[in-house]
Amino acid sequence: MRRPSGRNPDQLREIRITCHYTKHAEGSVLVEFGDTKVICTASVDSGVPRFLKGKGEGWVTAEYGMLPRSTHSRMDREAGRGKQGGRTLEIQRLIGRSLRAAIDLKALGENTITIDCDVIQADGGTRTAAITGGFVALSIAIQHMLKKHVIKKNPIHGQVASVSVGIYNGIPVLDLDYAEDSQAETDMNVVMNEAGHFIEVQGTAEGHAFRKDELNAMLELAERGINQLLEKQHEALYGKLDSAA
Amino acid sequence: MRRPSGRNPDQLREIRITCHYTKHAEGSVLVEFGDTKVICTASVDSGVPRFLKGKGEGWVTAEYGMLPRSTHSRMDREAGRGKQGGRTLEIQRLIGRSLRAAIDLKALGENTITIDCDVIQADGGTRTAAITGGFVALSIAIQHMLKKHVIKKNPIHGQVASVSVGIYNGIPVLDLDYAEDSQAETDMNVVMNEAGHFIEVQGTAEGHAFRKDELNAMLELAERGINQLLEKQHEALYGKLDSAA
Amino acid sequence: MRRPSGRNPDQLREIRITCHYTKHAEGSVLVEFGDTKVICTASVDSGVPRFLKGKGEGWVTAEYGMLPRSTHSRMDREAGRGKQGGRTLEIQRLIGRSLRAAIDLKALGENTITIDCDVIQADGGTRTAAITGGFVALSIAIQHMLKKHVIKKNPIHGQVASVSVGIYNGIPVLDLDYAEDSQAETDMNVVMNEAGHFIEVQGTAEGHAFRKDELNAMLELAERGINQLLEKQHEALYGKLDSAA
Amino acid sequence: MRRPSGRNPDQLREIRITCHYTKHAEGSVLVEFGDTKVICTASVDSGVPRFLKGKGEGWVTAEYGMLPRSTHSRMDREAGRGKQGGRTLEIQRLIGRSLRAAIDLKALGENTITIDCDVIQADGGTRTAAITGGFVALSIAIQHMLKKHVIKKNPIHGQVASVSVGIYNGIPVLDLDYAEDSQAETDMNVVMNEAGHFIEVQGTAEGHAFRKDELNAMLELAERGINQLLEKQHEALYGKLDSAA
Amino acid sequence: MRRPSGRNPDQLREIRITCHYTKHAEGSVLVEFGDTKVICTASVDSGVPRFLKGKGEGWVTAEYGMLPRSTHSRMDREAGRGKQGGRTLEIQRLIGRSLRAAIDLKALGENTITIDCDVIQADGGTRTAAITGGFVALSIAIQHMLKKHVIKKNPIHGQVASVSVGIYNGIPVLDLDYAEDSQAETDMNVVMNEAGHFIEVQGTAEGHAFRKDELNAMLELAERGINQLLEKQHEALYGKLDSAA
Amino acid sequence: MRRPSGRNPDQLREIRITCHYTKHAEGSVLVEFGDTKVICTASVDSGVPRFLKGKGEGWVTAEYGMLPRSTHSRMDREAGRGKQGGRTLEIQRLIGRSLRAAIDLKALGENTITIDCDVIQADGGTRTAAITGGFVALSIAIQHMLKKHVIKKNPIHGQVASVSVGIYNGIPVLDLDYAEDSQAETDMNVVMNEAGHFIEVQGTAEGHAFRKDELNAMLELAERGINQLLEKQHEALYGKLDSAA
Repeated sequence: MRRPSGRNPDQLREIRITCHYTKHAEGSVLVEFGDTKVICTASVDSGVPRFLKGKGEGWVTAEYGMLPRSTHSRMDREAGRGKQGGRTLEIQRLIGRSLRAAIDLKALGENTITIDCDVIQADGGTRTAAITGGFVALSIAIQHMLKKHVIKKNPIHGQVASVSVGIYNGIPVLDLDYAEDSQAETDMNVVMNEAGHFIEVQGTAEGHAFRKDELNAMLELAERGINQLLEKQHEALYGKLDSAA
Repeated sequence: MRRPSGRNPDQLREIRITCHYTKHAEGSVLVEFGDTKVICTASVDSGVPRFLKGKGEGWVTAEYGMLPRSTHSRMDREAGRGKQGGRTLEIQRLIGRSLRAAIDLKALGENTITIDCDVIQADGGTRTAAITGGFVALSIAIQHMLKKHVIKKNPIHGQVASVSVGIYNGIPVLDLDYAEDSQAETDMNVVMNEAGHFIEVQGTAEGHAFRKDELNAMLELAERGINQLLEKQHEALYGKLDSAA
Repeated sequence: MRRPSGRNPDQLREIRITCHYTKHAEGSVLVEFGDTKVICTASVDSGVPRFLKGKGEGWVTAEYGMLPRSTHSRMDREAGRGKQGGRTLEIQRLIGRSLRAAIDLKALGENTITIDCDVIQADGGTRTAAITGGFVALSIAIQHMLKKHVIKKNPIHGQVASVSVGIYNGIPVLDLDYAEDSQAETDMNVVMNEAGHFIEVQGTAEGHAFRKDELNAMLELAERGINQLLEKQHEALYGKLDSAA
Repeated sequence: MRRPSGRNPDQLREIRITCHYTKHAEGSVLVEFGDTKVICTASVDSGVPRFLKGKGEGWVTAEYGMLPRSTHSRMDREAGRGKQGGRTLEIQRLIGRSLRAAIDLKALGENTITIDCDVIQADGGTRTAAITGGFVALSIAIQHMLKKHVIKKNPIHGQVASVSVGIYNGIPVLDLDYAEDSQAETDMNVVMNEAGHFIEVQGTAEGHAFRKDELNAMLELAERGINQLLEKQHEALYGKLDSAA
Repeated sequence: MRRPSGRNPDQLREIRITCHYTKHAEGSVLVEFGDTKVICTASVDSGVPRFLKGKGEGWVTAEYGMLPRSTHSRMDREAGRGKQGGRTLEIQRLIGRSLRAAIDLKALGENTITIDCDVIQADGGTRTAAITGGFVALSIAIQHMLKKHVIKKNPIHGQVASVSVGIYNGIPVLDLDYAEDSQAETDMNVVMNEAGHFIEVQGTAEGHAFRKDELNAMLELAERGINQLLEKQHEALYGKLDSAA
Repeated sequence: MRRPSGRNPDQLREIRITCHYTKHAEGSVLVEFGDTKVICTASVDSGVPRFLKGKGEGWVTAEYGMLPRSTHSRMDREAGRGKQGGRTLEIQRLIGRSLRAAIDLKALGENTITIDCDVIQADGGTRTAAITGGFVALSIAIQHMLKKHVIKKNPIHGQVASVSVGIYNGIPVLDLDYAEDSQAETDMNVVMNEAGHFIEVQGTAEGHAFRKDELNAMLELAERGINQLLEKQHEALYGKLDSAA
């Protein structure tokens, strides 16, 4: 069996994280998993949503969108249709939960950080790219808040990254692109922290149900991929923060 | 450690599946996981959604709702707010995917079955009750179609059931009720078929990230619980079909 | 002429009112008019809508919904369509007005009671069942408020109940089921209080316009039916309150 | 007791029906009940709504709106709020039902007539003015269809008109204006045909429940008022049709 | 070349401005440009939108609507469709901007004036009629505020009026009616103040792009037309204010 | 007087047009006017909107959006708010009209081209950048259609470009950036074709009304700027088409 891209089963696509991609946001990143390209911005606002008022905690939330022609055939614009679809809401809830797991909301004070993840080109794995890039945008925004003395200590307690794994043509593979994703028998998105623990595990049988041993094989691939992504995040943040000094 | 309900860690709540609960639907069930009560109806319509037209396949889809006061404090009615929330959409997508995994859509012919899962009382685990009860409602509707000669052979290729597991006070527990669910460090919903394979695995760290060994312990509990649920489904269906003969 | 159900023209369907049907609401009832089954819950919240702020009065309002497959053929879910239809809004306005006529809003203090009426099985007369059962749920919630010392004196100044009447096959009949309702020449919903006075009278000619003498005959039937419903309400409330003592 | 307007209890406001008020509609009327002014247009389209396709019948439907400053204080524009309120939907359903009672839908053929009733100045009784004026607009549109040979025989089988009655300061009064309407203990809208039979009777207790004898007194006033309105309609139509000959 | 109406190229339609057309609004006008008829009301509310709170300034805004059958064929009601279309939003933004240019918002104090422009009959040029009539309604409302001592000095610093111009059959014409508008190669709406300066210039090539000299010819026609409209506004206001003295 | 950017009054910002910016769309461009960056994609679909069915003509339409943090402070996502605002609708109508002026819809056959213009970074002039870049994306899509033999002859009859002009600190300036735009007394967007004729002229007085001589000075600046933009478009297209050969 060969993967359509010619990659080895345990090989990520080329990963690029470009910091400070746009100029207005407190944190801004272009993240690329091969041909999947997502702009992640982190916007800081003082104050919190109503359900948190007066609790002395902050909030991190995420929104997700796709440009209408980020995909093979054009999708209707959600703003025009008048509502966000179920898939969009599901993904932005996942991104928000994953990034909140990286941060001590008490230490954030009564501030809200909104992570906007907008897909400008889709080729599979947009949600995992969004989480991985979103973490970097969040970190840059936190650095900005520290520098401006909005907060005193760094509320981030560890990195978070995400990758997809699946069963393609009967064997477990890492970081599925669209050609694989649309054919995969099982598709799983995994979010982990730098301690190697799980934040989210979402596996879905597409073709046939998957066995325990397949689950384990996928989780091992995911762990290996996420270790590389954590390194890429570190490089992107370290280089940038260094050069900004 | 004790569970608020006094149950053992690997003990399900009392499970009741009442078939033919309402009279108009082709399949209808009241499913109870302890104090969680969900009405599941299966409605058969000829024809399929536009994206399937002319392919000779059928479709199974699900919708989910909660009565405004099925919960501790009253929620706004989604029909009044003018849209279904992200949680609702996420749950109904999950139910639909899970039940489609139980059925051969080609053998269903160009027919659509809609599973409506409406929570009349919530005490944790509404989505897993909905999948478990929804399968029974689907099966009754299929029996009805066979009897009316709408289809010739049974398109169901095996049972599907679902249960939640989690880490509560540091130890893995089965079938969380609301008191546990709202305090759990990790919450996982598992959908399996009668062959013991996974249809869906959705684990979320609420408090702290979970380890591989915790994941495995939870999956084992889920498997044990689902085996009992598959039996309950069989009893409910077998008894009813028997008495209808 | 015979009624499809074999009932006499002045005969109600079997009426059942089950109190405390669900556990979270302050007042909760399953009301059955034959095969028409409606869950009515009364939810108490402190505070009032904006237009009443600072007036020292309370508010009673109602919402109405039907499960998608409560009817012969499945209806679209209003939450999915993104708005409540005209019929729904008309019915919930009627229920709200009728129940407000039973209560002294000044004596309620700045509290709001929301009556949710959700039809789980429809066979004609859902709005009259909702009013009749809604009054019982409201009364239970008021008892709860008195017991919790939220209010000091009972703000209810009398019972309210409702029934439908119509002209079916040329003769006036009481409490139409779906088979009659869909064929009736005239359909009228009447709401009365225990003093025998009218709260609402809504008569609609479906087939041909109705004469004054027909109107009078229908009103007399309605009065007779409502007297029995007031008795059923009293039994349901008295028994339940007794056993709770 | 005196009515705020100085009218006798059984006295209508000044009624004016101006035919051909706007130029594009097949039927168009300005109807005035005193200071209440409503533009009613009847628009003819070939074809029918989906639920009537292929049955060889026509359809008459109504829509209702108020200019934002037709009222004492400005209301939000429903188009801006994104939905029609419950009152609007209730009124346009009432107008539609009332006018359909005047017409043989089979004789209309597969054509749809939409009656738009737009209130440009409100002073109580807008729905009764809309029904009364809407009937005239409908009749003009039917004359237009006959002239253009769209239909062969007149499908109207009799006039329909409407008026409000109520209990104001303890005594029954006819055709309430806003000053009375906002203070009335009971408010009733009555729709009748030229045979003196009822199409709709909608009575609502606002302050206290009303007795049978009050109901009868109101219905008698309504009948008297409607007789005069039927005459006004006839004059408006007869004069106009005459001059068009 | 002849214009369909027989007018000279530089000739306005008959202009009529009827003040105090409806009774509730602080300012109210029926403006007619030939067969185009628009009701303009100005409603005064104390307070300002959130974005102006605490700045000591007032606000003037406009809303625009068309009765469904103000046009040749019936349009769907925007309130029923659930949103205002792009054309509606574009026009009401234009009217608002144009009228704000006539007024010193500081001198208005923290008050909001809403100009509602509702087209009851359309024959081209509804937005220019709305601006021209809207200015008169605004002026009447300001007179009302002065009289009631809500404000001390007149915040209006000059008249504003608007007209359309276009290229029809190759030659520039003033104040296009529908017959011309639907055939014009270029359509331009011009808003000017009494000093002869431009508030808005919006020119659109419909058939072929227009040259600089055509632009100039159109602007000259517009200026001539607007001078006459300013005079009509003055007459309408002067007469009315005179008689009210 | 100095412009905030230090540019001469008649100087454009740096203009960059990057073709084939994303890979799925038939035509795709990143257009930059200084710090204003817009992704323009052209998507080709066979078929036309309902109002054009069977006329043998094609359609070109545009949609416009801004990423939530493309601006100084974060804007709400229109998809989340459930509707597109008035400004969005106004801009996408303008882009669509402008690009339709460049093309012979008959020669396009029954095909629809949708131009999506998504602002990833805003610094003034997003709509003029969108038109200028949108034309290039449209042209690339047309080349694609010719190559694929979807159409036989090129339906584009000339280039179209757009720029903003305004009065800033009393003098006319070309291509306003945000710092100027937010302070300008007058703001004008001009769309022209390669023959030097006008497609759209939209001038708005922000601070004070503008005189005829100011209008003329702005139009001359616009013409000069558009000539340079037409050249940039030509370079972008010529280079790309050359290399693709």
